[in-house]
Amino acid sequence: MARSPKNIAIIGSGLVGSLLAVYLRRIGHSVMVFDRRPDIRTIEFSGRSINLAMSNRGWKALGEVGLEDQVKEIAIPLDKRAMHINDKPVYFQKYGKEGEAIWSISRGVLNKKMIDLAEQAGTVFRFNEKVWDVDLPNAKIFTGESEKSEWKEYKFDLIFGCDGAFSRVRHKMQRRSRFNYSQEFIDVGYKELTIPANEDGTHKLDKNSFHIWPRGNFMLIAMPNLDGSFTCTLFLPFEGPVSFQNITTKKEAQEFFKQYFPNVRKEIENLTRDFFKNPTSAMVTMKCYPWTYWNKVALVGDSAHAIVPFYGQGMNAGFEDIYVLNKLMEQYGDDWDTIFMEYQKERKPNADAIAELSYRNFVEMSSKTADPMFLLQKRIEKHFAQKHPDKWVPVYSRVTFSDRPYAEALAIGDMQETIMKEVMVIPEIESKWDSLEVEQKILGLLADYEE
Amino acid sequence: MARSPKNIAIIGSGLVGSLLAVYLRRIGHSVMVFDRRPDIRTIEFSGRSINLAMSNRGWKALGEVGLEDQVKEIAIPLDKRAMHINDKPVYFQKYGKEGEAIWSISRGVLNKKMIDLAEQAGTVFRFNEKVWDVDLPNAKIFTGESEKSEWKEYKFDLIFGCDGAFSRVRHKMQRRSRFNYSQEFIDVGYKELTIPANEDGTHKLDKNSFHIWPRGNFMLIAMPNLDGSFTCTLFLPFEGPVSFQNITTKKEAQEFFKQYFPNVRKEIENLTRDFFKNPTSAMVTMKCYPWTYWNKVALVGDSAHAIVPFYGQGMNAGFEDIYVLNKLMEQYGDDWDTIFMEYQKERKPNADAIAELSYRNFVEMSSKTADPMFLLQKRIEKHFAQKHPDKWVPVYSRVTFSDRPYAEALAIGDMQETIMKEVMVIPEIESKWDSLEVEQKILGLLADYEE
Repeated sequence: MARSPKNIAIIGSGLVGSLLAVYLRRIGHSVMVFDRRPDIRTIEFSGRSINLAMSNRGWKALGEVGLEDQVKEIAIPLDKRAMHINDKPVYFQKYGKEGEAIWSISRGVLNKKMIDLAEQAGTVFRFNEKVWDVDLPNAKIFTGESEKSEWKEYKFDLIFGCDGAFSRVRHKMQRRSRFNYSQEFIDVGYKELTIPANEDGTHKLDKNSFHIWPRGNFMLIAMPNLDGSFTCTLFLPFEGPVSFQNITTKKEAQEFFKQYFPNVRKEIENLTRDFFKNPTSAMVTMKCYPWTYWNKVALVGDSAHAIVPFYGQGMNAGFEDIYVLNKLMEQYGDDWDTIFMEYQKERKPNADAIAELSYRNFVEMSSKTADPMFLLQKRIEKHFAQKHPDKWVPVYSRVTFSDRPYAEALAIGDMQETIMKEVMVIPEIESKWDSLEVEQKILGLLADYEE
Repeated sequence: MARSPKNIAIIGSGLVGSLLAVYLRRIGHSVMVFDRRPDIRTIEFSGRSINLAMSNRGWKALGEVGLEDQVKEIAIPLDKRAMHINDKPVYFQKYGKEGEAIWSISRGVLNKKMIDLAEQAGTVFRFNEKVWDVDLPNAKIFTGESEKSEWKEYKFDLIFGCDGAFSRVRHKMQRRSRFNYSQEFIDVGYKELTIPANEDGTHKLDKNSFHIWPRGNFMLIAMPNLDGSFTCTLFLPFEGPVSFQNITTKKEAQEFFKQYFPNVRKEIENLTRDFFKNPTSAMVTMKCYPWTYWNKVALVGDSAHAIVPFYGQGMNAGFEDIYVLNKLMEQYGDDWDTIFMEYQKERKPNADAIAELSYRNFVEMSSKTADPMFLLQKRIEKHFAQKHPDKWVPVYSRVTFSDRPYAEALAIGDMQETIMKEVMVIPEIESKWDSLEVEQKILGLLADYEE
């Protein structure tokens, strides 16, 4: 397919913006990346920002441009969950089959790396340059010190909005008629905390686990860093009996950690200090449509579909956008109208599906993990999946360890849920959950669907 | 209750803004109304803008400040629908009981009247003054020629955003964290058309009817004006076989009117001229929350809850907001925190309910009116309601001729729908729809709900 080099602007130098730059440079386009923030490589960086879980979709997109190995060097594989339940020993749950893992990466470390790689590929970065307005039909952007200062005008052939959940580019598209948009916040916030390394630089908890302290409507998680520390995230309701609103003094914070997370007692000083030092952040599901404007502008990543983080798929979904976009660029050459139309048509249902799955995981984690019937259902599913691995692939594996569409994972998950509803009402299911009768029942119901 | 006079800004001089001004002036507040558009009273006005259907809730809010009679002088009561089905004589459906009617009013005529009344009450209007920014915590607004020009700063005690579906005030609130927001467009657009008066000034169609030409997924409606003309609205899909996209020439428009609306054949010249003169507009459902910022800023009317027009309740819902706000001001005096908190808590579920009912009416009108089972169901409901008027008040009457909460109308409507689902599967329902058996069945199901 004929492909003429284009003059392309990318707004946002985050993970999605810098990976897209690498892809576009590789096929000969001129790429200029704008970011309102300073170069992340020049900032004093604590290594303590949110950690990412890179899984199959993310690796595939990196692999396509030969970056998988380089990025794996700064990542730690996690092949299991480590569940910390009070008064019980830590127990481990394998994520998938042998060899399947998610990878813990520091967002900051990865972002620096990606910018380096994009720059080496010939991308021009313009940091500290704020985009205030976008002329969509003419692919022009306007930058300046402030919204009211003198603006500088740039003209491009194409613009990609990779500027995240609060995207300026989308903001401009949103003013058009017939642009559908929604943002919905959940009533739980999060805060980053740190568990430092041992004095000899080793990790204080198992290094190859994703650590979870589930506590009903709140929880703590921890992911390892290369330097031996763990980045923890505390998810807690904004308001209510146990909430950010009700922890305002050092004493209250210490009490909170002591009561609910006794097995990290030794870290209380660090945790408490971070609790008051770090901001409390909100989480939003953002959906919109369309994602593109003619053959001029396209949204990629969080700017098109921001999701809550409970499936660890935000970055993976954004990287998969790029992978799909690239396939369409190969297929349709210079026909950007078709590339953009097919891109949004293919990705929108999958973005909606992972948004739904992520939100459900939040509900599941906050309200269902204490329900014995829910836990029994999960036990039955696992038991059946082990006996019939070809017939029952859990949704988690479909999302995390496959590259089949998210929408398919959601649909199959719904089908599994319908089947399990019938199973759970079998009389005395508690005592015969691992019986042949139950197994036959599931097989029968599955066969009904296959017809 | 003590009530100190406040210095209040209202953004928007539309129907809701001007009625709110009347209310606030009546209890001694200083009121300044800003509008980015010119004074509607000074504009050449055709009398042809969208017509409104004032019903119970609207009249009640006007009545509270003694304006009901003055406004009735510029309104025409419609006590029935006039259904125009091709190849059949026009048939009439009474809206409610004897004496119940909705009232056709020209939006422009009413808005001029309301601004006059607000001005007479001592409101200061600042037309042609564009609000570009709002300082929410300090209740300041910033106006100027353009977004980038010099701005003038105003400081108030309170600000009310009555600036419609694309509200600037809400736009500012939307940038805060934890602000939920959605806008969803439907795939049908509308266009205003006119049927002029007879030469002697009389109406060409029955004056006291709401005229409907239902045509499956599109329709034409007409409402009378005082000058003998009718304001028509054509609702038509944007895309598809019969759509705005596919009517681009005069000939196509004439063919369209001839084929689908033969009984207004004589008006084709006017309709076709208007079709190309007037813009095609989109329709949106907009929801958000919260509606208020501390004790400083509140959204009222469309700025808080824009709905599709298929229940004729947009203005009525906005006026009811003011009625409720006024009751809370009486109850809580100077405690604006409580007034605003109670206002949004009381109104939000009702705004969501009328949004849902309006959207359902759109679906019903576009897809169900051709379904014989749906029509049979409606006939059964009507038959039963006539025999048991105390037991079955249709949702339409609950919305239009009562002041009970919209949320209650929606809930009872859902209950009625559940009952009718069971009724419609009675074997041979087509032949015994008016039998004692069916009547007894409905009574029995209703009794179940009453327990």
